[in-house]
Parts: sequence; structure tokens; C-alpha cells
Amino acid sequence: MDRRRASQLLAGYRQFLLGRPTLSSHEQSISGSYSKLNTWRPCCMFRVSVGTPQASNYLNLGKTYATKQRSFGSAATDIPRNPAFSKLNADDISYFRTILGERNVVEDEDRLSAANVDWMRKYQGSSKLLLLPKSSQEVSKILHHCNSRKLAVVPQGGNTGLVGGSVPVHDEVIINLALMDKIISLDKINGILVCEAGCILENLSSFLENEGFIMPLDLGAKGSCQIGGNISTNAGGLRFVRYGSLHGTILGLEVVLANGTILDMLGTLRKDNTGYDLKHLFIGSEGSLGIVTKVSVLTPPKLMSTNLAFLACKEFTSCQKLLLEAKRALGEVLSAFEFMDSHSMDLVLSHLDGVRSPLSSSLYNFYILIETTGSDETYDKTKLEAFLLRSMEEGLILDGVVAQDINQSSSFWRIREGIAEASVKVGAVYKYDLSLPIDQFYGIVEEMRNRLGEAATVVGYGHLGDGNLHLNIMTTRYDSDILAQIEPYVYEWTSKHKGSISAEHGLGLMKANKIHYSKSPETVQLMVDIKKLWWLSINFKANEVLTKKSQKVVVKEAAAVTRAYY
Amino acid sequence: MDRRRASQLLAGYRQFLLGRPTLSSHEQSISGSYSKLNTWRPCCMFRVSVGTPQASNYLNLGKTYATKQRSFGSAATDIPRNPAFSKLNADDISYFRTILGERNVVEDEDRLSAANVDWMRKYQGSSKLLLLPKSSQEVSKILHHCNSRKLAVVPQGGNTGLVGGSVPVHDEVIINLALMDKIISLDKINGILVCEAGCILENLSSFLENEGFIMPLDLGAKGSCQIGGNISTNAGGLRFVRYGSLHGTILGLEVVLANGTILDMLGTLRKDNTGYDLKHLFIGSEGSLGIVTKVSVLTPPKLMSTNLAFLACKEFTSCQKLLLEAKRALGEVLSAFEFMDSHSMDLVLSHLDGVRSPLSSSLYNFYILIETTGSDETYDKTKLEAFLLRSMEEGLILDGVVAQDINQSSSFWRIREGIAEASVKVGAVYKYDLSLPIDQFYGIVEEMRNRLGEAATVVGYGHLGDGNLHLNIMTTRYDSDILAQIEPYVYEWTSKHKGSISAEHGLGLMKANKIHYSKSPETVQLMVDIKKLWWLSINFKANEVLTKKSQKVVVKEAAAVTRAYY
Repeated sequence: MDRRRASQLLAGYRQFLLGRPTLSSHEQSISGSYSKLNTWRPCCMFRVSVGTPQASNYLNLGKTYATKQRSFGSAATDIPRNPAFSKLNADDISYFRTILGERNVVEDEDRLSAANVDWMRKYQGSSKLLLLPKSSQEVSKILHHCNSRKLAVVPQGGNTGLVGGSVPVHDEVIINLALMDKIISLDKINGILVCEAGCILENLSSFLENEGFIMPLDLGAKGSCQIGGNISTNAGGLRFVRYGSLHGTILGLEVVLANGTILDMLGTLRKDNTGYDLKHLFIGSEGSLGIVTKVSVLTPPKLMSTNLAFLACKEFTSCQKLLLEAKRALGEVLSAFEFMDSHSMDLVLSHLDGVRSPLSSSLYNFYILIETTGSDETYDKTKLEAFLLRSMEEGLILDGVVAQDINQSSSFWRIREGIAEASVKVGAVYKYDLSLPIDQFYGIVEEMRNRLGEAATVVGYGHLGDGNLHLNIMTTRYDSDILAQIEPYVYEWTSKHKGSISAEHGLGLMKANKIHYSKSPETVQLMVDIKKLWWLSINFKANEVLTKKSQKVVVKEAAAVTRAYY
Repeated sequence: MDRRRASQLLAGYRQFLLGRPTLSSHEQSISGSYSKLNTWRPCCMFRVSVGTPQASNYLNLGKTYATKQRSFGSAATDIPRNPAFSKLNADDISYFRTILGERNVVEDEDRLSAANVDWMRKYQGSSKLLLLPKSSQEVSKILHHCNSRKLAVVPQGGNTGLVGGSVPVHDEVIINLALMDKIISLDKINGILVCEAGCILENLSSFLENEGFIMPLDLGAKGSCQIGGNISTNAGGLRFVRYGSLHGTILGLEVVLANGTILDMLGTLRKDNTGYDLKHLFIGSEGSLGIVTKVSVLTPPKLMSTNLAFLACKEFTSCQKLLLEAKRALGEVLSAFEFMDSHSMDLVLSHLDGVRSPLSSSLYNFYILIETTGSDETYDKTKLEAFLLRSMEEGLILDGVVAQDINQSSSFWRIREGIAEASVKVGAVYKYDLSLPIDQFYGIVEEMRNRLGEAATVVGYGHLGDGNLHLNIMTTRYDSDILAQIEPYVYEWTSKHKGSISAEHGLGLMKANKIHYSKSPETVQLMVDIKKLWWLSINFKANEVLTKKSQKVVVKEAAAVTRAYY
């Protein structure tokens, strides 16, 4: 394609888009997609088991979880409750009332019913008690009591996860941090925010934007998920390609351990090389080591100029090359590089009202969203457009359009963010969140499509910039034969290609027994050993059994995941 | 200052600089400053103690270390050797020869002499054996043998550290990874480099630059320090403000534990949420938990446009404001924000040949170096100059100059990087590497200047963009009275202001017993507990004693530090 033709095309797309009806804003679009989350999920957090480890009801349950997952029903009922855990009694309730007050010790059935099920309604617990602490000291007292009484607990917040990590399995006490939602400080020079762990991500974002900063993470469930849960699940999301992992942006944590010890690691410094950096153990450990109660996070300055392009490619290799080129040409302003295949696009166009392709043809195989964020509108836009022209001339892009205002941006994002919503409208959906090397990124989608044939619709999309593929396989209803064709094949394929079976969703109950596909036996053993530290007063027989089954070892207290966005 | 005047000034500086004599390139300047490192330091790494923990010769040595540090002589001789460690015998040597071959089992006195002392010649060991493994399997065999024989080991590489972490204290076996210097792979789409831990940082940088990428860290000792040592000490350096901590950029590690277990965590994925992310325990733990043998690192694309400004400010508050404004206006291209006071400038101008101020007046109080790195020369330069003009108009900058070519850049960097070199020419230098909240950043420099009066020259400089101050206090000779005026005051002051007593140098032997100034007793206890995991077969009496002395607890196997740059 020559330069003039490419230039005409880009201009043409702009004109076409400017004539389109106005859609809702990007923010509205996101919260609209997940509006249910805001109403029926009050909070979210991460699981902590207290009491004896050999009594843990999460040990050795891999097979049961797998069966459960296949049934897509309640996860709890099939798993035997470990009798070594105590049962809640009236004295416990009285004690909690003395600590928290009458109002924050919840036994109301309706409220418990909502807290006992995850937002996908796949996992169902039967907890009789929901506690609402207002401070780290209250969390400490709760855990100290539960530990001494051998009562199992599960922290829970927005409960927006996809792997069944944030709901009780049986009658665990639910600890909800929703009342710990205070912003403690903001260093306006360095952008260092300190807040309680129950702060809702979107509230933090709004607060920061008024102060000229942004959160380093953004995800669809932001209206419900809490920062403590984001940290416990090492949430990824849309800004990952620009601002990286929470391991790089979380500066400090306060954590309450299972025995009630309050661990003060709440540093606000960018550099601190004094001993082991223990906070990292709590980032992504899905609540199995403690409850995050306070957070210190490095927030980037809010930059004023954002641009968004919606592009079409013929080959997957063109998408790969485009990513490489974008990193070079747009390196410092690139803020998202999102990918979807034509099947994803068709799914959204078929199932979501009011969504249209911004491109005049629908015959493309792959679509890419490139977002840039910088400090200078003119320079940034010119830079993006020059890059797009070059890419069209080189044949990497077949077609494309640059959003001219926030409404057009919203309509582009609506397509990408609508895939999850559209997929559940088909009937049954089997969801996989994989990290894969870039050259293998799309292979599993094609493999599954070949393998399943007419029996299922297979779509691939995700954060290509981070190597994170979301593989959704849809059928009209859940079917164990279909599942048997998918699993363990998808995990084996991912493992063979050195990918990860959980890129950003965590293991949860769904994948606790699949860890060996992504981690070596020695590494899993060390995780088990570390978990022992939190149970120092206990004999380790259960772990010793696990050691012998190194390939089948299960990481205990699976997970809580707070993200609906995927 | 009006806009026209500011503009004239900037133009004037450029003209002035263009007429200056050509200096050596930035690279030459750096390696020149540290040329000695290249010749007499072959390698570097991180300390691992094997054998019984109660037999560790690093336990409870805080006071001795402190005395030692004061003497600025050999650290080893004052510390009693723990007799529970075995002594090397002929059978050990024979065994090592069967594993490594004749050549890589070094008993030569000259080579041992160089490996027994740190580059500052402050810490002196008396090891009789230097081992040069060529593979992870060889490292594993060495450690397995040493563990079973209760032989203490110290890994060592470039040995460029400033806190005495990379040399033996007594007769530890030195394990040198210099022969493990192979690049294993580079994913040219995502910029993910996998290499052995003995690779020298500068070699990795050169390799990557040819491939269009850069290392996410850069530091003055790059010609000697090894990537394994960088990771073990969580090295900071010049690119930290742009690319952040190694916790964000290291994607995977292979580590050999003290018992010889090879821990494969060598992922090459940007996202992997499957269980605890254990690699973070090894980043910055200064070799006390294992020897890093392989590394996977995310390398940013090499961007083509670099600009550098040398600026003068009157007040420290102006430097603070300038940082804030730079983050907003240059956010996506800002790659360094370095600070030095007039005392630092005077020091360099007085003691280093051929160094001149690029500014016509020398009456300024503070100097700032701002570097930008981006993908478009024209846009980036225009953006920087517009920012500088605005800052001059606002009175934040009194004077300034933008480098017009690489020689001018080198001459600017030479001033900043020459401070360390100049400071040792005065006589004695007491060095502190502090992280401080931005509003307290310069306070300790003024405090120390008031406190010491005419007795010492006090200079403050460092990475203002990261809140990392280097405080150097110089006297004509080492003096215990001066030291008593500095310590523990400087640590107490830092602790009181919620800073860190080690921003990027690590604890090493120098600050192992100072950890309580920056970490809570509970956190230190958890570090001790984690260290226990590596010694599972051992009774914990030594640790139990430590527990009771929670405020005085020492993190064992202090540290190896590989960085001379500070």
C-alpha cells in the first residue's frame, strides 16, 4: 500500500467515525458491562486458613475441585469438611460483638447468602458469619481468636474473581474489609498513596485523578474490587504493558498474619534494601499467607494526552511484528496493546446491542487496539499516526481507524471489553487465562478449534503486549465430554510451551491442583515450606505426605481473586 | 525571568558548550573511573552459608562489625570463627577437582589474595580456596558437598560492593561464577533475555544494544559487576526512575539452594500467577538464601533519542518542585533526575583533572541533571526545551544548559559520576546510602554539616527521582570521635523520618546489625523464620536467642554487594 493510499484510508476512517452516533463514555461502558458487580457484591479479599494445617479443609482436594469445576455448580458440597476445624459457637459470636460491635457481626441470611457465592455463581459456601472489621487491630483480634479456636476464615471483598478463590468452601468465617476504606496519605511530589486495603479501586482512581495521578492498574471490575484483593491476586489488567506488575509498583504493605501478628512493611520509599523484601510474598499469594490491611503504592502522574487506534491485520505474525514495531516507535507512550481474533469480534457484534465495527469491512482475521498516553497531545498524535502510516505501507495493518474523541474511544473499548459479556450469552463458557511465549500465543486457539470442530465456538483475545491470552470456549450447555476434550489438553499444551496456566486470574479453587503445569516440584515444595512458617506451632504430617507426592502437590488455601475483567 | 531572556540563556549555554574541548564519551568516562575494577576484580556474587545455623560465623556479630567498620581495616580478624564449621581438607580439594577439573579449583595465593579483599580494601578474608563452576550442576555439587561437610562458602563476583558483603570473613570457600557467562536466549519480540548469572552487566548491555534493546539497569560498576550479583543486591542505579526496581523487571531466576537443590523459577513470561512468586525472595537478599545461577530479564527497547540538561537551582524546594513538574511534563521520556549540592560540585572541580562546570557561574546551591530518552529526536528535544523554558520563567531553574552532543553529555555525567571518585581523594570518607521521603531528603545533610562544623566536609547527592540520597562525610583521616558524632545519629535520624538506612547498597557486613532502624521486629523475625527454611534439618537455638533480642536481631549471612556506583 503506498503512502498516499494509506493516508487517505486513515483520513477516511476518521470521517466515517465522526459521523457515528455517540456512545457512552469509556467509563460508563466499563461499569455498564459490570453493573451487576456493583450491586450484589459488597466486598472482596483473600483466603487465610487458621488453626492446624493438617486440619486444613483445602489440602489434597485437587481432584474434588476438578470434578467440581466440571460440574459448574457449587464447589463446596463435594469437598469433605475437615473435622479438625472447630464449629462456630455462641461464645465466638459474643466475643466478635465485643470487638466489632453489634452491627459489624452479620448473621443475616440475605447478606450471608450473597457473600457465600462467587459472582459467576460457580462456587457456593455455607458460612454463618460475616465480620466487618474497621481497623487492622480488629482484624488482628479476629484472626487471633480464630487461630486459637481453630476456626477457618475466608477474607472476601468485591468477590469479582473467576477462579473461585473468594468464597467459603464450607462454614468459614467471612472477613470483609469493606469498612477499611480510608485513604491515609498522598505524597504529592512522588505520587505515593497510602490507603487501607478495603478501598475500592475506582474510588482510588477518582481520588488520584483529582490530584493529578492515576492508579498503575485498571481493570473492568474496578467499581467493586478492592486494592487489597488486587494485591493479593497480583491483578494485571489494562495498564500492565505500561506500568508493569504490582511487584514493581507496590512499595509497602501492612499484613495481619493468621495468628494476629500485624506485620508492618508499610514503607513509602522507592528503594529499601534492608533485608528480605517480604511484601512480595503477599503479592499474588491469594490470601493464603495473611490479610493485607494497608497498602502503599507508587502512582504515575496523570498524563493529558490519550490516543486510541483500532486496527485490522491479516496474519497473526503481522500482529506480532506490529507489537515489536510499536514498542520501538511508541515505546515511551504505548499504554495498551490489545488483541482479538475475528471470532471474538463476531461474538461481540452478534450478542451485544449497539456495538458496530468501526471498520467498513468485516473480513479481517485479527484486530489490534493500540493506546498511547503521553504529555503532549500534538506530538503524541503525530507520532502515532506516523507509526500507523508506516505500518500500513509495510502491509502489517490492512485497515485502521484512530478515535477522534472520547465517544469513539469508548466504542472501540466496548468491543474489546464486551467479549467476556458476549461470551456468557452463548450458553456455557470454559474460560482459560494463559501466559504464552509470543510465538505460541495463538497456537492453542487454533489447536482447540481443530480439536473441537463444530462442537464449540473458540475465541482468542487478550493482552498481546503482555503475552496474556484469554481463551474462551463456548457451547450451548456445559458438557463433560467437551470438557474432557479441553482438559487437561489445554494445560498440557501450555506447559509444553512453557506458558503459565494462570496469567492474571490466580489459581483459586479452580486451578489449585494444576500448579505443577507451571511450577517445578522443587518450587512448589518451597511454597509448602513457606506456608509452614505461618503454622510453626503445628506438626507437619500433612505437608510431609504432600512432599512425597511432589508432582501432585497442592498449594493450600487456594485463592481469592477479585477481578472480573479478563 | 521573562520568556525571551530564558530563551536567550538556553541558547547561550548551548553555544558556550559547543566551544568546549571534546571529552571522552560517557562510556569511557564511566569505565575510566572504575578501571581498576576491571583489572583486579574478576567476579562477584552473594553469600551463602551452609552447614549448621548455630555454627554460622555471621550470627550475633553486629557489635564486632560495627567496631570493624570504625577501624576501616580488616573486618575478618576481629570476628571469632565459629568452630562448628569444618575446616577444608585434602579430600575436599580432591573432590572439587573431580567435579570442576584441575584448572577451576584455585589455590594460587595471588588469585586468592585478590579474592579475599573487597575493592575498598575495608574487609579482608583468609579463604584458601576459590572455585570456578561452569554450570548450575557444578554449583549444585559444590553446595551439596559443602553442606554435608559443614564448610562455609561465600559466592563472589565483581566484588564492587560498598558494604563488605562479597568477601570471606574467615576461610569460607569462595564460589566464583565468572565462567557462567553465557547468553542463553533473547526473545526479540518481547525483549526477554535469558542468561547465566556470571554475565557482566556491560557485556549484556553491549549484546542487547546490537539487538535493539537495553538493560533496565545501568550503574558505574557495570564493567565488573555480574547480573547475578545485581539481582542478589537488588541493584538500583541510573535507570531506576524510568524502569523501576528489579522486582518489576526480573521475570525468572534459577537458584541453587545451600543443600544443592536447583530451584527452577526461570520463567520468561510477563505474567504468571501460579502460587507464591518466590523469585522475589532472592532479589535483594544478598545471597543469604541461595546462589542465583540463571536469570530471565525484561529488557526495554532501545530508544534513539537521548537528551541531557545540567541545571542550577537556588533552593532545595525548587529541586523538589522541578522533580514534580518534570514527572508531569516529561513523564514518559524522563530517564534520570540526578541531584548534587554545591559541596559535591566543589569537590569534583577541586579533585578531578579536566572537569569544569558547564555553567558560567559557580554560585549556585544545587544542581540537577535531567535526562530524557524517547523515540523521536525532534519531539523529545522540543518537549524538554519547552519544559526548561517554563521552569526558568517560573524561577525554579536559575541557570542551565542542554548537551548538544555525546561529548557534552559525557562531561555532564562526569561531574555527577565523579563525586565518589573525588571523595576518596580527600582522605577518609564515611559513606551513607539513604532512602528518604522527598521533604526530608536534604535535611540530614544540613544536620550533619551543623553537627560536625569545621571537622568534616559533608556532601549530599544522589538519585532525587528515587528519593535516594548519598551522604558522604569526609575528613583528612579516619577518626573514632568523628564516627561517634555520625553514628548512630545518622541511622536514628533516618529511622525517625521513616527512611531506609540502605537504599541500594544493601546491608552487607557494614549494616547487618542496623536492620532494626528500617524494619519492624516482626518483619525481621519473619526474615529469620524464612532463613530457617533453608536450614530445616538443624536445631534453632541460635535463632531463638535472636528472637528474644528482637530489637538487636541480626540478619545472617549479611550480604554481597556488587555495585561501586553510588
